[in-house]
Amino acid sequence: MSKLYVIGIGPGGLEHMSLRAKKAIEESDIIVGYIKYIEMIKPLIQGKEIYANGMRGEEDRCREALRLSKDKVVSVVSTGDSGIYGMAGLILELKKDEVVEVIPGITASSAAAAVVGAPLMHDNCNISLSDLMTEYEAIKKRVELAAQGDFVISLYNPKSKGRPHYLRECIDIIKKYRTENTPVAVVRHALRQGQEYTLFTLENFDESIVDMFSIVIVGNSKSFIKEGVFITPRGYKVGKEQ
Amino acid sequence: MSKLYVIGIGPGGLEHMSLRAKKAIEESDIIVGYIKYIEMIKPLIQGKEIYANGMRGEEDRCREALRLSKDKVVSVVSTGDSGIYGMAGLILELKKDEVVEVIPGITASSAAAAVVGAPLMHDNCNISLSDLMTEYEAIKKRVELAAQGDFVISLYNPKSKGRPHYLRECIDIIKKYRTENTPVAVVRHALRQGQEYTLFTLENFDESIVDMFSIVIVGNSKSFIKEGVFITPRGYKVGKEQ
Repeated sequence: MSKLYVIGIGPGGLEHMSLRAKKAIEESDIIVGYIKYIEMIKPLIQGKEIYANGMRGEEDRCREALRLSKDKVVSVVSTGDSGIYGMAGLILELKKDEVVEVIPGITASSAAAAVVGAPLMHDNCNISLSDLMTEYEAIKKRVELAAQGDFVISLYNPKSKGRPHYLRECIDIIKKYRTENTPVAVVRHALRQGQEYTLFTLENFDESIVDMFSIVIVGNSKSFIKEGVFITPRGYKVGKEQ
Repeated sequence: MSKLYVIGIGPGGLEHMSLRAKKAIEESDIIVGYIKYIEMIKPLIQGKEIYANGMRGEEDRCREALRLSKDKVVSVVSTGDSGIYGMAGLILELKKDEVVEVIPGITASSAAAAVVGAPLMHDNCNISLSDLMTEYEAIKKRVELAAQGDFVISLYNPKSKGRPHYLRECIDIIKKYRTENTPVAVVRHALRQGQEYTLFTLENFDESIVDMFSIVIVGNSKSFIKEGVFITPRGYKVGKEQ
């Protein structure tokens, strides 16, 4: 059998992976991925052949996975959802006659949301602040339009050493459209080892604790904090208890 | 033990549920949910007490789940992610001293995306066209700003009998900002029994096949169809093969 699975393993802890993703990994001969993601699923892949490389090695990794899948069962793994800032797009762009199946996973904003309550309950968007492949001007424009549209905003790749000021600048853009007490959550390593989170408001937001393992979620105009829990109401008119 | 799990079961087929969600359901005494979602997980809940009701019974369902969780282990189930248009928000709004854990799932846009390729690979948003709890004017404004911001747009609850024209009107708004050959996917029952999908462009889009079990995904300005697969490029500059 020969096949290439493009798998989203979810937040990283094995328990939030789908049953389908687990089964596909188990039946694979070869596992391909960024070295840190491979570490996360170690207990599942004992005895399998591994092709791991570092950051920015995405194209090599995908070409190798496609080549290997011509006569083996291969899994390319990403954290979160393979279809959201993951490897599914590049694999499908490069694919010729290989057999590819995309297996989705729980994306990072869903994982981070579950940790702090229910901030994504209404219309919401995912924006990556990484400017490796997108002009920063386009990113800022998107942040501004999302803020104007009152979307709940999840910021992926919120901060790295090469662009320490982007997050602060984007938060300042959002501030033009939301009140100072709008909740902001920073969740690091959501639903995996090392999980921690802090709730802020737009006013007291402190980006110093944010890094590349974090997701930042900014509420919409109706979001609130109730006893340490971040809630965006869906809009139910909650009646008095009977 | 007493506890309330708020569970996203993912697209509906048991295999795309997370291991954590499955385990929580298995250890629950009582399962609460919309009757159609309960049907989907029947093989998992044999012998358990069930509290199911119909659409628009959300508040009753949540109050009952909270009440029952005072001396039992209870799971409230939603399809997709419990934290995106699911039950997590309402449960947390109504919660007093009950112990609640939100368990996320694969949301419908991720599931639909995996079926048609990799349309969500770049910045993307989820918008519900249901006007039960949101003014239609606010929905249209969001669609317009998302189109202007070049987000990939996933439309949830795209059509119902009470509002047959919203989808067409929203597609027409998006058309002002995207070219006619922008890909549009309609996916019904993504990753569960009865799955079907059709790929359109903004120009030849036909909403007659869309219903409440569908997700509609509109690509961004760089999305394309390659041999029947819907791809939004992440932005990798793909080199010539060695």
